[in-house]
Amino acid sequence: MNLKPLGDRVVIKVKEEQEKTASGIVLPGSAKEKPQEAKVIAVGSGELIDGKKVELEVKAGDNVIYSKYSGTEVKVEGEEYLIVRQSDILAIVE
Amino acid sequence: MNLKPLGDRVVIKVKEEQEKTASGIVLPGSAKEKPQEAKVIAVGSGELIDGKKVELEVKAGDNVIYSKYSGTEVKVEGEEYLIVRQSDILAIVE
Amino acid sequence: MNLKPLGDRVVIKVKEEQEKTASGIVLPGSAKEKPQEAKVIAVGSGELIDGKKVELEVKAGDNVIYSKYSGTEVKVEGEEYLIVRQSDILAIVE
Amino acid sequence: MNLKPLGDRVVIKVKEEQEKTASGIVLPGSAKEKPQEAKVIAVGSGELIDGKKVELEVKAGDNVIYSKYSGTEVKVEGEEYLIVRQSDILAIVE
Amino acid sequence: MNLKPLGDRVVIKVKEEQEKTASGIVLPGSAKEKPQEAKVIAVGSGELIDGKKVELEVKAGDNVIYSKYSGTEVKVEGEEYLIVRQSDILAIVE
Amino acid sequence: MNLKPLGDRVVIKVKEEQEKTASGIVLPGSAKEKPQEAKVIAVGSGELIDGKKVELEVKAGDNVIYSKYSGTEVKVEGEEYLIVRQSDILAIVE
Amino acid sequence: MNLKPLGDRVVIKVKEEQEKTASGIVLPGSAKEKPQEAKVIAVGSGELIDGKKVELEVKAGDNVIYSKYSGTEVKVEGEEYLIVRQSDILAIVE
Repeated sequence: MNLKPLGDRVVIKVKEEQEKTASGIVLPGSAKEKPQEAKVIAVGSGELIDGKKVELEVKAGDNVIYSKYSGTEVKVEGEEYLIVRQSDILAIVE
Repeated sequence: MNLKPLGDRVVIKVKEEQEKTASGIVLPGSAKEKPQEAKVIAVGSGELIDGKKVELEVKAGDNVIYSKYSGTEVKVEGEEYLIVRQSDILAIVE
Repeated sequence: MNLKPLGDRVVIKVKEEQEKTASGIVLPGSAKEKPQEAKVIAVGSGELIDGKKVELEVKAGDNVIYSKYSGTEVKVEGEEYLIVRQSDILAIVE
Repeated sequence: MNLKPLGDRVVIKVKEEQEKTASGIVLPGSAKEKPQEAKVIAVGSGELIDGKKVELEVKAGDNVIYSKYSGTEVKVEGEEYLIVRQSDILAIVE
Repeated sequence: MNLKPLGDRVVIKVKEEQEKTASGIVLPGSAKEKPQEAKVIAVGSGELIDGKKVELEVKAGDNVIYSKYSGTEVKVEGEEYLIVRQSDILAIVE
Repeated sequence: MNLKPLGDRVVIKVKEEQEKTASGIVLPGSAKEKPQEAKVIAVGSGELIDGKKVELEVKAGDNVIYSKYSGTEVKVEGEEYLIVRQSDILAIVE
Repeated sequence: MNLKPLGDRVVIKVKEEQEKTASGIVLPGSAKEKPQEAKVIAVGSGELIDGKKVELEVKAGDNVIYSKYSGTEVKVEGEEYLIVRQSDILAIVE
């Protein structure tokens, strides 16, 4: 199964949270920081601006930083994804 | 009877919720997850942007994921449908 | 007397509620579902978008489904009508 | 004295409320329905849309139905008028 | 000293309130109606709409009716003025 | 050090409040009226409207009246300035 | 690792707060003024206005003053950055 996001939407896969801190201590769930990094899985056909389609800046495979709490969680074949608008993506990590 | 949605609206039929979990347990109504998947039944004539009609990206027959709780429920000849705006549709499932 | 709605407005006549359920039981007033279906009586001259008049999609005689509670009730010669914007009309019933 | 409304504004004169019901009973003030009908006295030079003046649809002398409670009451030489935007006018009564 | 308002702004001088009612009774301050009439003193260079300057409809010397409580009071050389946007002016009194 | 404001922003220097009233009485701090007059120190490159830069109406050296409480206070080398948008400037004092 | 901000976003590095006041007294954390100055690290591809990309006014290396509390904090390889929109940047310090 494949997700094809609409318009300026982007399907991202949130990166696994680090289970250990820099000092090697294993953190219980609630103490972990909410991750902000994700990988782009699929991108929409573009943003519609004044009747013109404008291609998105991000593309599948990009590592991105996104606004915490934005987007809608979806579960496809047991895997969890987040569908966000491109405007919720702050930067590409290179 | 037929529904022809206006503008950027789309008539969708919400998919039957899974009555069983992966492990085969039958779930009572309240424990079931609110479905997010639906089939597109009919699409409007297009979105009006700056005086130009822009054709919708979804078409009848598409399986889509939509924003929970969006749209208006209508009952036509005993069947329940949801009329949503295309912007409430997040992605097409292929 | 005649009503000529302005711009993107539409005069509709809400359909009589069904006094009986499918099983033939007569329902008291409060148990009846709020009707969502209406007949278009008159349409405005069009929506003004970027200085251009765009003709409305609905026309007099159409049966439509509209958003519950939208619009303004007017009484003309004892008859009750509803003046709504076209954007409050969800779909045409064919 | 004369009022020349600006832009998309319209000066209207609210119609006298009916003092009697259809059955001829004289109603005390508070039981009377708030009138919704008015006569257009003067219209503005037009609505400015994208830098273009678009002439108003209503003209002096039209009988119109307007949104209750909209507009600003002004008193000119003892007479009360209402200055509303054209968008507060729902329909022309013909 | 002179005030040159910016853009779509207009400097107006609120007219002295009538100290007497039509019947000649002198009113104490709090019973007087808030004045709505003013004289235009200076007008801005125009409204910027889609990158084009659109000249204002009012001009210095016009008597106007404006929305009560709108605008900013300024005191220049002991005289009180009101700086309002043209959209706060409802009509020109001729 | 120099401040170059961005876009439609303007750096202004609020004028010293009058320490004395017209009658020559020295006012304690809290009784002084909040000043509304300022001198323009630097102006931004212009307002971006529909993709076109539109030059600002105010220029360095202008005395202006601005909306009280608008803008952001900045301290540069011990001097206090206010960075406001041009739309917070009501009029030029000539 | 590198951050490439999207659209009209800018990555900035907030300047170290002065640990000492002008009189040389070392301030404890809570008494220090929230810094408003920052250095631009990376800029987005431009703002999309009416379907046209408009290049940003700030560039990497610029010292800028930004609106306190705006933007999103991100931590990259132990370093803290702030991702803001260009509209949150008030002025360039030259």
